[in-house]
Amino acid sequence: MNHRIYDFQQWLKEQDTSIGFLTSSDNIFYLSGFRSDPHERLLAVAVFPEGEPFLVCPQMEKADARRSGWNHEILGYTDIENPWELIQEAVKKRGVSVKKAAVEKEHLNVERYEMLQHIFAGPIFVSAEEKLRSLRMIKDEKELKIIREAVKWADFAVETGVSEIAEGKTELDVLASIEYELKKAGINEMAFSTMVLTGTNGASPHGNPGKTKIKRGDLVLFDLGVVYEGYCSDITRTVAFGDLSDKQIEIYETVLKAETAAIEACRPGATCAELDLTARNIISDKGYGSYFPHRLGHGLGISVHEYPSLTETNSLVLKPGMVFTIEPGIYVPDVAGVRIEDDILVTENGCEVLTSFPKSLQYIK
Amino acid sequence: MNHRIYDFQQWLKEQDTSIGFLTSSDNIFYLSGFRSDPHERLLAVAVFPEGEPFLVCPQMEKADARRSGWNHEILGYTDIENPWELIQEAVKKRGVSVKKAAVEKEHLNVERYEMLQHIFAGPIFVSAEEKLRSLRMIKDEKELKIIREAVKWADFAVETGVSEIAEGKTELDVLASIEYELKKAGINEMAFSTMVLTGTNGASPHGNPGKTKIKRGDLVLFDLGVVYEGYCSDITRTVAFGDLSDKQIEIYETVLKAETAAIEACRPGATCAELDLTARNIISDKGYGSYFPHRLGHGLGISVHEYPSLTETNSLVLKPGMVFTIEPGIYVPDVAGVRIEDDILVTENGCEVLTSFPKSLQYIK
Repeated sequence: MNHRIYDFQQWLKEQDTSIGFLTSSDNIFYLSGFRSDPHERLLAVAVFPEGEPFLVCPQMEKADARRSGWNHEILGYTDIENPWELIQEAVKKRGVSVKKAAVEKEHLNVERYEMLQHIFAGPIFVSAEEKLRSLRMIKDEKELKIIREAVKWADFAVETGVSEIAEGKTELDVLASIEYELKKAGINEMAFSTMVLTGTNGASPHGNPGKTKIKRGDLVLFDLGVVYEGYCSDITRTVAFGDLSDKQIEIYETVLKAETAAIEACRPGATCAELDLTARNIISDKGYGSYFPHRLGHGLGISVHEYPSLTETNSLVLKPGMVFTIEPGIYVPDVAGVRIEDDILVTENGCEVLTSFPKSLQYIK
Repeated sequence: MNHRIYDFQQWLKEQDTSIGFLTSSDNIFYLSGFRSDPHERLLAVAVFPEGEPFLVCPQMEKADARRSGWNHEILGYTDIENPWELIQEAVKKRGVSVKKAAVEKEHLNVERYEMLQHIFAGPIFVSAEEKLRSLRMIKDEKELKIIREAVKWADFAVETGVSEIAEGKTELDVLASIEYELKKAGINEMAFSTMVLTGTNGASPHGNPGKTKIKRGDLVLFDLGVVYEGYCSDITRTVAFGDLSDKQIEIYETVLKAETAAIEACRPGATCAELDLTARNIISDKGYGSYFPHRLGHGLGISVHEYPSLTETNSLVLKPGMVFTIEPGIYVPDVAGVRIEDDILVTENGCEVLTSFPKSLQYIK
């Protein structure tokens, strides 16, 4: 029994809950070490206050699950078997009568919810997510070692991208080179779709890289991250190709000031809201408040977006071991888009900035 | 009002349903033309039997949604606003009292389900998915044109991969080159994680490409697809590097025979089960039945896995305009893994194989 399952079991006991039934790949990976994308097929881990947990997966993934280190029961099912019958039987075999079930209400779909209602004869459902989020929010040494490695590759990726900038290359040309070099180095999975945006394309905070060519006087925005051994990194840098206008420079320096101030405010005891507002006020004071339409940042780990969420209303207090992004941005349509994002680890006395690519405005000649 | 929304509205009327509330990116794209990955944020389309539909999206995506061609109301919300209040208000404004709501039971999560129960004061929930699947299952000419283009890029990708095979290159080296060339050509999104598996790695049907080096006598399996203008392709080819053993050849030829026979059986009026069993019986007759642990194929379109599902128990009858994969495989651990997959369009008189990379066993020297 690993300590994560043990901790979750203790919580189930405290909550007087008969079963924890988890279906999200990320929580399953956290508890079991097994990572899989089952598409529309069912992947689940069931944990009980007492007794042996089990994993449910497609028959053809059973061997992979075993190799991942899951040493409890595995219920493998083929495409023509009904996994819910297997689950019902496995629960019955354990002598468990389900009165109260903890599920991921933000992940479990209505169809599966109705199946669970059916096979467990209408239990009460409570959310397991807050507990798993709080378990996952504080990273242990082993996780931090992996995250540091993931972050190193994000820095490498930005370096690669910046070195590829040249007149006439497209966003996709640069993006292709970044991911090519990562793959050659053994990094095959990105944490999300890599963004390379040039010129005013960067003013769309969720823009799609395309065939726009880089030209002198443009800002080039990189937002990317890798998945390394199941953990995500996430970095944004915006660099200049040739000389910039005064307006572009003002926007960049405002974002940098906001980002730096938020990092300086980051220590155990500060709240998420304090950090967000530290950055937001600097941007608002410069008159760009309405051009910063998103939260300051988000937790980072097995999921690229997890807890804590750094919004201006979140009173959650920071603790050592939390890892999150700080990523203010200013997006003025048809003028410029700038975002600067670091990955931050809260330490005993303050914080450590994990990402290391320079943030002073880089002019690429 | 586009014809898809109109068709869905007619169904809502027939079902005496007050609202269709859809939250999956794929169905939203199908109905609205707007494609977005909102992460944990809410993205939704609401359709009513009468009256104007609306789209709900993060404030910062509003302009993108408008540009995608959605010309009805858009409810944009910031990270600190509650989108459910906006939805409740927009529904009230339309004078709609929700007694019965159609949702995607396989997609909608329990948390949102409970929110809808709350803001609509406990309506009956029915599933909208079967209707949307049947609408989406038959492709129109415009969709087929896009899918053909997506398939062309899948063929190109396999060609690129095969041309990169060389002694000592790793799976990831070959994969890196494939995606590099695609991106340079403007194709940035893969339909799923590209698979390049060599030697016995191919015997894991969902294996992960890594640093295994290609060596003579190996089979190399490619399974990949691209997303082109929102539609997916999906192809698998297995080729030989150098000479193969008799066993490897037998496995290859058995899969090829099964795949070819299933395609020959493919015509309007045949069932999904008939196709699956045509291939499965050939594989079983050769003694490899237990090494073919998955269905024959799956529908293909906006989603890489959609309807129809080609299992040995699905009595769904094929109709012209359906597009799906046919992809039998044999995976003998520590011996060989072979899968051959084509994208198939059901025509008036039979079918058309959209993918065109050769299937006779290719020996790469």
